[in-house]
Amino acid sequence: MEKTSLKVNRERLLETLKVSSSIGSTGNGGLNRLALSEADKNMRDIFVDWLKEEGLEVRIDDFGNIYGRRKGKKDGPSVAIGSHLDTQPCGGKYDGILGVLTALEVIRVLNENDIETEYPVEVINFTNEEGARFSPPMLGSGGITGNFSKDFIYGLKDDEGISFEQALNEINYMGDIKNRITNIKNFIELHIEQGPILHEKHKTIGIVQGIQGNDLFTVKVTGKTNHAGPTPMKNRRDALVAASKMIVKVNEITNEIPGLKTTVGKMNVRPNVTNVIPGEVEFTIDIRHEDNDLRSHAFERLKEQLSAIALMSEVELTITTDWNSETTLFAPAVKDAIKNAADEFGYSAMELFSGPGHDSKYMAGVADTGMIFVPSVDGISHNEQELTLDDDIEKGANVLLHVVQKLAKDKL
Amino acid sequence: MEKTSLKVNRERLLETLKVSSSIGSTGNGGLNRLALSEADKNMRDIFVDWLKEEGLEVRIDDFGNIYGRRKGKKDGPSVAIGSHLDTQPCGGKYDGILGVLTALEVIRVLNENDIETEYPVEVINFTNEEGARFSPPMLGSGGITGNFSKDFIYGLKDDEGISFEQALNEINYMGDIKNRITNIKNFIELHIEQGPILHEKHKTIGIVQGIQGNDLFTVKVTGKTNHAGPTPMKNRRDALVAASKMIVKVNEITNEIPGLKTTVGKMNVRPNVTNVIPGEVEFTIDIRHEDNDLRSHAFERLKEQLSAIALMSEVELTITTDWNSETTLFAPAVKDAIKNAADEFGYSAMELFSGPGHDSKYMAGVADTGMIFVPSVDGISHNEQELTLDDDIEKGANVLLHVVQKLAKDKL
Repeated sequence: MEKTSLKVNRERLLETLKVSSSIGSTGNGGLNRLALSEADKNMRDIFVDWLKEEGLEVRIDDFGNIYGRRKGKKDGPSVAIGSHLDTQPCGGKYDGILGVLTALEVIRVLNENDIETEYPVEVINFTNEEGARFSPPMLGSGGITGNFSKDFIYGLKDDEGISFEQALNEINYMGDIKNRITNIKNFIELHIEQGPILHEKHKTIGIVQGIQGNDLFTVKVTGKTNHAGPTPMKNRRDALVAASKMIVKVNEITNEIPGLKTTVGKMNVRPNVTNVIPGEVEFTIDIRHEDNDLRSHAFERLKEQLSAIALMSEVELTITTDWNSETTLFAPAVKDAIKNAADEFGYSAMELFSGPGHDSKYMAGVADTGMIFVPSVDGISHNEQELTLDDDIEKGANVLLHVVQKLAKDKL
Repeated sequence: MEKTSLKVNRERLLETLKVSSSIGSTGNGGLNRLALSEADKNMRDIFVDWLKEEGLEVRIDDFGNIYGRRKGKKDGPSVAIGSHLDTQPCGGKYDGILGVLTALEVIRVLNENDIETEYPVEVINFTNEEGARFSPPMLGSGGITGNFSKDFIYGLKDDEGISFEQALNEINYMGDIKNRITNIKNFIELHIEQGPILHEKHKTIGIVQGIQGNDLFTVKVTGKTNHAGPTPMKNRRDALVAASKMIVKVNEITNEIPGLKTTVGKMNVRPNVTNVIPGEVEFTIDIRHEDNDLRSHAFERLKEQLSAIALMSEVELTITTDWNSETTLFAPAVKDAIKNAADEFGYSAMELFSGPGHDSKYMAGVADTGMIFVPSVDGISHNEQELTLDDDIEKGANVLLHVVQKLAKDKL
């Protein structure tokens, strides 16, 4: 058997996924496995056992990130693979979990085939990627890459007032700062797309170009609160009517700029009483595009359009920037390796950008990084109905295996 | 002195108002005198003393409504005048208070001039007109006119779980059902306009034609919750974008139908998270017009327009009717009396409709009823900045005095 045809063990991979799917089950096809919860602890314990069974050197760092290291011929920089085992409170059983379990399967295949790689291979499970229990998301990867300070992360509290540090200690996953991964050649993360593109285009493998930049703004519209009964239409300064016109514009601008995505996800109306003309409305605008310049351009255009509406409606407008996150571009070497692997296996593949953030966003700052997307049926994610077909899981894992062999310099 | 030139005592009236303005003061120009509160009790106690000082026969009914009866030559039906002494939590010091205190001033003038009327005159303070503590509003007038049952009113609870019945007992204003006013010839209520029309048109006296009908609907727009990052624009079924287009239409329809007022006062977005496409939006539509047919026509037009938007936006639309309240028309005899009084005093006057509801709405069902509006500066009401000028208060009271003389058949 030629090494190029090395493949994962489908049954074993699906069996491993089945175990994961039973830990924190919602009983309705989904998972509730919030970061550092009891369910997360149970999953971590089993995962650590699996790593040890493969003879890996297991480390836990001071953010609870779990590493399993497989030695290479050199003690050089490692090829790291993985994602996260935590979920949303009513999440699916695939999401980032597939990235961790396919990474484990890659190790199992390398082991049973006695393959020695030039560089070490490390499997990683990052803590609190979802941000559902402790916000913001991607704390484990953000912590080790210097995007968040240790004090910041430790001080974050969940809805019940429990701090990250306390939660980490409670489940017994407080590790040592010296265990953080530092010398990394590549990071490769397999993940479900969470969108409909691969599914609609009947492609199996997504070669992720990067993570779309994402700007978030909060718009405050101030008019005048007044009573619906006595106030003639011409005397009104209705903040909600003005805001509604603005939201229509925020949506329409995507017709001008191909690939632009805008979303008003959050909106609050005050005083929010049936017979009172709203005096104040606040809403957010999320703008995404991989081209940083087009994204800024879109915002500047919107600012003009929204100001014009405010002027016509006699309301005041203030726009504050919550964040500007530039587009992350993945390493050509990793993208090429993914493309070649898909081609050699004969899997259909396409390039696409990721809308949501992933641990790879932060890892791209410290290593040549890339992501493999597998299809989400109907693009559904963060939902009990989330589904990635067994065939696609297997194919994605095969590609990951091949990419690891290539980047860790197994002699293919 | 001819009786036609009988006038109120401005200083006394303003002094009485000043006492009222000190009971439940917000310390900032307004009043917080919620129905059946300690402040309301204090005001009631003083008011009852004032009625007794004028030799009136005071009664309290089983809704806490207070009556002060001045005998007529006949023991026939009475001419009732008044309004309510309760306020919003951050209300003004004029509102319905003026209607009660000008009624008291009318009695004082009749007394000091030894005027005997044919019919009895009764001053009324209705309980919980505002609906701020116990919702719905106008409970006292609604109760005695059979619009609400006693069980319904007694069972209503405030935000702290205290029932209307309990609150009434606690302030010692639980009266007897036999004290309800029953035999009524007219009801006349002086009130601030709560809108800007008289102020803008520089008129002193509003001859209220009636209370505009008012329909309230709840619109539910159901799209699909999805993630802002991965979901292409063309795949979205964004409930908020669709709802925004609808709200613009709800506003624009007022350009088609003169005098129509539409308000979207309340709106809730789900899940209301910055990076999630809203899957469900609920909002209310308040429609007001004095012409019942035009109001129904406006709703039918809106239903078509909203359905078209729903179809184009691939969202589901359900509209439920919360209430349809027909227009109340006031009695020609009362309107004529108000007009004549204003003319004879040389006060500028105009006809207009009331947008908000008042105790007169229910009283119109049991007696020939009418309202006198006095100007609200800038139309501000239910607000500490609410202001009606002393001159306008005096003139309004003079008109009320004259109308009472006319309807109670003083020999003018």
